[in-house]
Amino acid sequence: MNLKPLGDRVVVAPIEQDEQTTTGIFLPETAKEKPQQGKVIAAGPGSRKDSGERIEMDVQVNDTVLYARYAGTSIKLEGQEYLILKETDILAIVENGDK
Amino acid sequence: MNLKPLGDRVVVAPIEQDEQTTTGIFLPETAKEKPQQGKVIAAGPGSRKDSGERIEMDVQVNDTVLYARYAGTSIKLEGQEYLILKETDILAIVENGDK
Amino acid sequence: MNLKPLGDRVVVAPIEQDEQTTTGIFLPETAKEKPQQGKVIAAGPGSRKDSGERIEMDVQVNDTVLYARYAGTSIKLEGQEYLILKETDILAIVENGDK
Amino acid sequence: MNLKPLGDRVVVAPIEQDEQTTTGIFLPETAKEKPQQGKVIAAGPGSRKDSGERIEMDVQVNDTVLYARYAGTSIKLEGQEYLILKETDILAIVENGDK
Amino acid sequence: MNLKPLGDRVVVAPIEQDEQTTTGIFLPETAKEKPQQGKVIAAGPGSRKDSGERIEMDVQVNDTVLYARYAGTSIKLEGQEYLILKETDILAIVENGDK
Amino acid sequence: MNLKPLGDRVVVAPIEQDEQTTTGIFLPETAKEKPQQGKVIAAGPGSRKDSGERIEMDVQVNDTVLYARYAGTSIKLEGQEYLILKETDILAIVENGDK
Amino acid sequence: MNLKPLGDRVVVAPIEQDEQTTTGIFLPETAKEKPQQGKVIAAGPGSRKDSGERIEMDVQVNDTVLYARYAGTSIKLEGQEYLILKETDILAIVENGDK
Repeated sequence: MNLKPLGDRVVVAPIEQDEQTTTGIFLPETAKEKPQQGKVIAAGPGSRKDSGERIEMDVQVNDTVLYARYAGTSIKLEGQEYLILKETDILAIVENGDK
Repeated sequence: MNLKPLGDRVVVAPIEQDEQTTTGIFLPETAKEKPQQGKVIAAGPGSRKDSGERIEMDVQVNDTVLYARYAGTSIKLEGQEYLILKETDILAIVENGDK
Repeated sequence: MNLKPLGDRVVVAPIEQDEQTTTGIFLPETAKEKPQQGKVIAAGPGSRKDSGERIEMDVQVNDTVLYARYAGTSIKLEGQEYLILKETDILAIVENGDK
Repeated sequence: MNLKPLGDRVVVAPIEQDEQTTTGIFLPETAKEKPQQGKVIAAGPGSRKDSGERIEMDVQVNDTVLYARYAGTSIKLEGQEYLILKETDILAIVENGDK
Repeated sequence: MNLKPLGDRVVVAPIEQDEQTTTGIFLPETAKEKPQQGKVIAAGPGSRKDSGERIEMDVQVNDTVLYARYAGTSIKLEGQEYLILKETDILAIVENGDK
Repeated sequence: MNLKPLGDRVVVAPIEQDEQTTTGIFLPETAKEKPQQGKVIAAGPGSRKDSGERIEMDVQVNDTVLYARYAGTSIKLEGQEYLILKETDILAIVENGDK
Repeated sequence: MNLKPLGDRVVVAPIEQDEQTTTGIFLPETAKEKPQQGKVIAAGPGSRKDSGERIEMDVQVNDTVLYARYAGTSIKLEGQEYLILKETDILAIVENGDK
């Protein structure tokens, strides 16, 4: 992986709708602000506080996350599409471990 | 439950209008910003303060809450519809215990 | 009463226009932002400061208050209509005691 | 007087244009934001600081003040029209004493 | 003078275009935001800081100032037109002393 | 020079396009926000901090600066056109010394 | 190089689309906010904190960066086109070293 996001940004690899079915989460097609699911493949160091310290990130690499569909900027990296999001655009972490 | 909301977000299971009748609360159909009732099934850890500490949440899992209808993002999880809201979109907690 | 407002929100029972006449306050029908009068039936604990403490509320339960007509969210509770307002939407407390 | 304004709000009794002539102040009819003159009949305790203390009010009861015409909310109290303004909508205090 | 501006407001007596010629400053007629020149005849005590202290004013009574034409509120006082501006709407002080 | 800018404002004498060619910088005609070059002929003392101290200016008198074309207010002073800009509208200082 | 950006601004030399192919990053033509890649050729000292100190820059000269296409102001310098961006408009640093 060769993208190092700045501040509180994360790089997310979107999970296709078909894969989402297998995890048991369906996203409504007609919702005004459609959420999506993806895997975090890179996370920034966090926003800086006035003191110069960073605000710790709540999201880690390999987390599966739910985010609003029109949030962020999509890029293509070696033929694969990714999304660069700010952590504040991430709604929730999807935990599959204890299912 | 496998959604872990970030910051001050909560996951709410909406209570249908018919159920609301039994709790004695009716929501006007014609109001511009229609409120709704739901049950909190997951709550985030709270927003971070500059010090890194969290601001304590006022809403707990299992609370019945009143919220504005068009607030938040609706998702489907294992066939059931949920809403991801920020705590600031929650108007009031509905207490049925002493009724 | 079974609504517990969050933050600096209050639940207000609106006072009808006819009752307002008897208190000596008339509200102009044609004003762009028409104010109204009501009785506070529940008050939140106040907004949180960064320190975690609450900002004390200026409005108490049983206060008669004047507010802008289109402020807040109206709900029905056991057949009666109420309004959920933020304290900042309340213009003044109406004191009838020394009249 | 039975209105107790909240925060930094004041209740003002507008002074009619004819009275304004006698004080020597004329307000232009065609100005986009027309200022007006009135007498303060009630003043709030001031906005709260984060520490919980109030920010002292610059305007006192009985001050004659100049304000922008479309600022605030107009109400009727015992047949007389009043205006509820925030102190920040008041442009200047008119001092007639040393004239 | 009988106007006491609040906060960081100043009362300015506009200088007519013809007078501006004699000071050597010409203001373009076609500029979108046309600046003007005037003399400060009253200045507020300055905005309050959170500590309750005032932020010192940079503009003094008798200063000749340059301001954007559509800033502020114009009033008439004893037949003369004045402008009430916030100090932040003042672009520069015009110094004629060393000319 | 008889203009003393307030806060973080600077007075800039624009450098004509032809002069810009000789410095080796060409500004695109079709860019939505066209930048321009000018010389700083007066600089304010800097914005005030809450403590009352000034934030030091990064731009000095005689600096050649690059700024967005539609920023600021243009004035005429003794037949010459100037621009009053806030320091935040200045994009970069152009250094010709080591060229 | 003779541009010294102010605050947290950087000067970026855009990398052409064809070059981007060789680094393995493709940018979608149809995306609403199209990202682009470039090389940082000058970086400001960072924004000032209230204390007067600078907030350290995360981006260094010679970094290859990804930014939103319509961010910033484009200029021409000795026949070459550059972009002046704020650091907050930079999405990520592209690291090619370990590829």
